[in-house]
Amino acid sequence: MVDVHAAHPGRLIGRPVDELDTPVLVVDLERFESNVAAMALYCRQQGVAWRPHSKSHKSPDIARIQLAAGALGLTCAKLSEAEIFLEHGVTDILLANQLASPVRLRRLAAMQERGRILGIVDHPEALDMASQAGQRAGHEIPLLVDIDIGMHRTGVRPGPGVVELARAVDAARGVCLAGIMGYEGHVLADHPPAAKQRAAREALAHLVKAREALIDEGLSCDIVSAGSTGSYDLAATHNAVTEIQAGGAIFMDAMYRDRFHVDDRFDFALSLVTTVTGRHDDHIVTDAGFKTLSAFHHEPRVLHREDLEFNYLSAEHGVYRIVNGSGPALGERLCLLPGYGDSTTVLHDQFIGVRQGRVESIWPLAARGALT
Amino acid sequence: MVDVHAAHPGRLIGRPVDELDTPVLVVDLERFESNVAAMALYCRQQGVAWRPHSKSHKSPDIARIQLAAGALGLTCAKLSEAEIFLEHGVTDILLANQLASPVRLRRLAAMQERGRILGIVDHPEALDMASQAGQRAGHEIPLLVDIDIGMHRTGVRPGPGVVELARAVDAARGVCLAGIMGYEGHVLADHPPAAKQRAAREALAHLVKAREALIDEGLSCDIVSAGSTGSYDLAATHNAVTEIQAGGAIFMDAMYRDRFHVDDRFDFALSLVTTVTGRHDDHIVTDAGFKTLSAFHHEPRVLHREDLEFNYLSAEHGVYRIVNGSGPALGERLCLLPGYGDSTTVLHDQFIGVRQGRVESIWPLAARGALT
Repeated sequence: MVDVHAAHPGRLIGRPVDELDTPVLVVDLERFESNVAAMALYCRQQGVAWRPHSKSHKSPDIARIQLAAGALGLTCAKLSEAEIFLEHGVTDILLANQLASPVRLRRLAAMQERGRILGIVDHPEALDMASQAGQRAGHEIPLLVDIDIGMHRTGVRPGPGVVELARAVDAARGVCLAGIMGYEGHVLADHPPAAKQRAAREALAHLVKAREALIDEGLSCDIVSAGSTGSYDLAATHNAVTEIQAGGAIFMDAMYRDRFHVDDRFDFALSLVTTVTGRHDDHIVTDAGFKTLSAFHHEPRVLHREDLEFNYLSAEHGVYRIVNGSGPALGERLCLLPGYGDSTTVLHDQFIGVRQGRVESIWPLAARGALT
Repeated sequence: MVDVHAAHPGRLIGRPVDELDTPVLVVDLERFESNVAAMALYCRQQGVAWRPHSKSHKSPDIARIQLAAGALGLTCAKLSEAEIFLEHGVTDILLANQLASPVRLRRLAAMQERGRILGIVDHPEALDMASQAGQRAGHEIPLLVDIDIGMHRTGVRPGPGVVELARAVDAARGVCLAGIMGYEGHVLADHPPAAKQRAAREALAHLVKAREALIDEGLSCDIVSAGSTGSYDLAATHNAVTEIQAGGAIFMDAMYRDRFHVDDRFDFALSLVTTVTGRHDDHIVTDAGFKTLSAFHHEPRVLHREDLEFNYLSAEHGVYRIVNGSGPALGERLCLLPGYGDSTTVLHDQFIGVRQGRVESIWPLAARGALT
């Protein structure tokens, strides 16, 4: 077996995936490509732009594939991530997080020389920092007003405060008003579908009202950004929304399917291959613990097996109950579906892209560890 | 502010920690050194060797400090990690995890050329793989029999199976019997102290019996390895135990103190500095979400503040309730104590060592990402 950690990428290309040492994070390229194409097509059909969040992949290679499929640009959560993607040629990025420090806003201003890097704002003091940074750099920073549409995490509460902040953005030097954004993160697990649809509509209605209020004031509101994988269809079909940020659908995972009821337009493209290192009467142990595979938010699922049930992860051990039959043999390989893909991918340095059982591509998570 | 992610280490040395961009993982060097010295001294006093687990730091720089303080060697959880530490000159390593694949055991055999790299075994098939690998390499692999002393994760159940496997190790070519190990992980949260002590004694008694049984059989049992930070004193004072693996005590964290009641011989040396990026009526938002700071197993704690209460982490947002007073200002920096340090450190590429407010050392987590 080849040690994926130590091997030069060139040594891995063309190898059967069964020859790679485990644990190894594998992307099924056919499913992945189908997921990317499905999201791009769906957005085109709905007349909405796709600005996938990069936090699910942190990979410039995957960003390139998304852009080639028709994505407008990327969404990033961290300034240093956005800088990495910009270096790799992604020139239209929404930095969908508050910065709130003069140095960070100066870096955001500097990035405008090479692309359109949108920021968001939900506080007048942060606007002030942005305005000063933009003026100092001689580049206007385009800003979206972040609206709290029900998640109560970030954003200005709907109402007069939104127009007030938008007016302040419009009036400030060194920045310009590019639109609004909101995140309907609080509705993702709502069920049944009618209840989720109602909750999403109610949340997104705040964006409709805000947009109307801005336009009534003579302010520009070209961009209305929202929409995660757990609600991509509800956001994409909403007439106020101009772009959706749904990122995780390219991989899909157990949480999106089980908790957020994401439909089968998207198939499971990400898996973690692990080896049975312990064989006991009632349980087995694998070589993928929580430093390899996250069980935070949602449990992983063992694929293609009915005899194993997830029990728990220690740092470097995965423990599964044998629920019927005799269970796998020592040394046997298991294929796991991550619970929440996003929190598993950042534990790895690369994705191993596999087609018909062979390694076709190695995609480094170049923006992993860029935490500032 | 200097971006810790992008800056060359040389640019960081000597800087005030307040000038570093956040989130940033900081080691208070005075406390860290005091923790290392305290554990080394305690082990010396108890006449037990210290073989700290490297999973808490994954850093050859820290390993060097531990060895200089008197540690016998290291414990590693992954083969590729052990290879990295061996490359960095650590020549006495216990690889405290089952390998269960011929290729891995060949790598373990090859490492014997440069050091004493002990493996563990709990299954005759794995012993067979080790035996073949050792013979093929022309180096004996020293093995400990892993005994399930109550955690029911890995290990042979106490009783005749232990002697049977030990006898098989002793008889097999290409390997040699170096002793036994067990992990009393199931007692860590037991409380009050008397109950924990009782449970630990009961667990460790299995090691005493096994050692006696081996010696009665004329088998060698030089090493009896056990002991994590949550039970270091109970293991170190147990007369059968020859070495303890306690690793996390060098940093300490909220979980060790709150859940495992680790005493104040060890002080909190690890912290995560984060910035307030969102200011709302009843809560604040910081720039450290679960991709920077783990809340898995135990919640982080805000240090030096009575006005904030942990609420939740999203991928890139930390949310804290304002419980009294007006809370911190936008842009203010907060100092967090990780819940379980181990699961936070692997999200970072380096430790920033700070003394009297200035950066003194940068320690890369060189073995991070070595998952195989």
